[in-house]
Amino acid sequence: MSATTTSLVNHQIRLAARPMGMPKPTDWSHTSEPVAEPADGGIVIKTLALSLDPAMRGWMNEGKSYIPPVGIGEVMRAGGIGVVVASKNEKFAVGDHVSATLGVQEYLTLAQEEMKRNGLFKIDLRVGTQTQWLNVLGMPGMTGYFGLMDVGLPKAGETVVVSGAAGAVGQTVGQIAKIKGCRVVGIAGGAAKCDWVVKELGFDACIDYKAGPGAVRAGLKEHCPKGVDIYFDNVGGEILDDVLAKITRGARIIICGAISQYNNTTAVQGPKNYLSLLVNRARMEGIVVFDYADRYHLAVAEMAGYIKEGRMKSKEDVVVGLQTFPDTLLKLFNGENFGKLVLEVAEG
Amino acid sequence: MSATTTSLVNHQIRLAARPMGMPKPTDWSHTSEPVAEPADGGIVIKTLALSLDPAMRGWMNEGKSYIPPVGIGEVMRAGGIGVVVASKNEKFAVGDHVSATLGVQEYLTLAQEEMKRNGLFKIDLRVGTQTQWLNVLGMPGMTGYFGLMDVGLPKAGETVVVSGAAGAVGQTVGQIAKIKGCRVVGIAGGAAKCDWVVKELGFDACIDYKAGPGAVRAGLKEHCPKGVDIYFDNVGGEILDDVLAKITRGARIIICGAISQYNNTTAVQGPKNYLSLLVNRARMEGIVVFDYADRYHLAVAEMAGYIKEGRMKSKEDVVVGLQTFPDTLLKLFNGENFGKLVLEVAEG
Repeated sequence: MSATTTSLVNHQIRLAARPMGMPKPTDWSHTSEPVAEPADGGIVIKTLALSLDPAMRGWMNEGKSYIPPVGIGEVMRAGGIGVVVASKNEKFAVGDHVSATLGVQEYLTLAQEEMKRNGLFKIDLRVGTQTQWLNVLGMPGMTGYFGLMDVGLPKAGETVVVSGAAGAVGQTVGQIAKIKGCRVVGIAGGAAKCDWVVKELGFDACIDYKAGPGAVRAGLKEHCPKGVDIYFDNVGGEILDDVLAKITRGARIIICGAISQYNNTTAVQGPKNYLSLLVNRARMEGIVVFDYADRYHLAVAEMAGYIKEGRMKSKEDVVVGLQTFPDTLLKLFNGENFGKLVLEVAEG
Repeated sequence: MSATTTSLVNHQIRLAARPMGMPKPTDWSHTSEPVAEPADGGIVIKTLALSLDPAMRGWMNEGKSYIPPVGIGEVMRAGGIGVVVASKNEKFAVGDHVSATLGVQEYLTLAQEEMKRNGLFKIDLRVGTQTQWLNVLGMPGMTGYFGLMDVGLPKAGETVVVSGAAGAVGQTVGQIAKIKGCRVVGIAGGAAKCDWVVKELGFDACIDYKAGPGAVRAGLKEHCPKGVDIYFDNVGGEILDDVLAKITRGARIIICGAISQYNNTTAVQGPKNYLSLLVNRARMEGIVVFDYADRYHLAVAEMAGYIKEGRMKSKEDVVVGLQTFPDTLLKLFNGENFGKLVLEVAEG
């Protein structure tokens, strides 16, 4: 093991209050404390980069969900990539790169019995870069892969629509769907994102939802002449309703998220076209990535192969500095991020 | 074949206008014409009883659905039971009882090539009564059977909730679910219906949605302590949202109808709790009974067995007189019918 870690200072960002609507600076507190020594079997991880995801907004709310909320006063939950800087565990050496739920902080001291709960595993930087391990090879990639493959059940020739197409999950979904032989139409905000999705990622088309009222409806009509067989929904709201109006018989809708609704101070907007499920004998089904943990390694191997072959690209929007977290997170909700949003905490 | 039929008068009810909201008397026209002779291979059916169903409201609207709308000026579509009164087809003898899409009229002259499209088949009155053939052995029964079994996939010990519990589909769903070993909780309007569903049909409980604000939420909490594994939805609206808040992980919601929304003059109310599908990895799926036509005979045989054994009961609300159709139909939408609503057109 390395030298003592108690001389190191761990800067942290904690949830100070449950936000109403969009999170404000006063919903966070900035704290610091010494880095605890690892117990026998434990390790200390230095955070290199954190994954900033729409799901974080849900974790800040009280109430039952697929995962307990972050408690008031607790370090904000975040998945990330780090490097082991102290180890009393023979399976981890100083210098090993790992993925885990690190939290929005510079260091995490992890006891052996906490490793599984924190989703700790070693990553191989020869397979993918640090940011790719937070993107296509990380939670967003796994979410896209299993949501599309296990719930969407794509068949070659089918039309797949994905919202948040330039985001972390969306870029994975679209590229896998292309590899599986589907026609792929993205929905994203702004011409730059749409251009990138089509020209770089090879989607067949991308609809700019910011292009004006009715843009999504018109785009679906133009680009999905046979209707929509699979819709991977990251946004909810009006766009979900627009797609519901275009689904085919037996269509599958994967409910992965609803970013348009996460900062509502009023009730969530339910899909008023949901009876299209009846007319079309279609299905709407939710997915939570953690259910597929025992198969992550298979999906990572498949995707790493595509990356190596140049068939899968990725884009990350990297912002530097732990202290920027409260502001950086908001980029997700106003659609400012272009690619998977990553917070770089330290140089690797 | 029998004597000529052209001396017979066929009274009919036709759709005169597309209703806005609840159908009005002026949305219908009453006509009469001579009964046409059957062509070679054809038959003439005398209507005995018609099935009045919530789905009829949808058939009166313009626009794409799972079945074309009834045209303005056309005889209103209705399934029914009749008796063959003239035949030029060796497979049908005068006196045979049949089920078919007869329309809201006293007679139907059917050409051979129209028989399949009209869903014509002979019924055996030893297996079930005329009204049972419109109820548990008819479309509502088939809808309940295949919706529950093929989409709901019930397992013994699971909790099944069904709305419209005293209606045609609901009574079938609940009784089959009980036979399959599930805990069954109905939702119906009024104490009389709830009592009947529990005492006569053997549901474990029934929630009276008319008992006051919050009655459904409180009832679900009381009667579904382990949550709702399967929800068979005939009503939509607030009740769907209340159940969504109580579903278990991996729950299945069968979207069969949304009677609370059919006469809306504003937009359909979408389920604002739909993100419960995500949290619970649950599924919401539509069902249209016609997709199961090649397996009706299997379900009828199974259900006829239950009827014979006394394990499946049924209740019909029979109103007499073709001319009452415009008023009688409204009983469905204000919840007045108690049991499957049947219009008796002639004595059998």
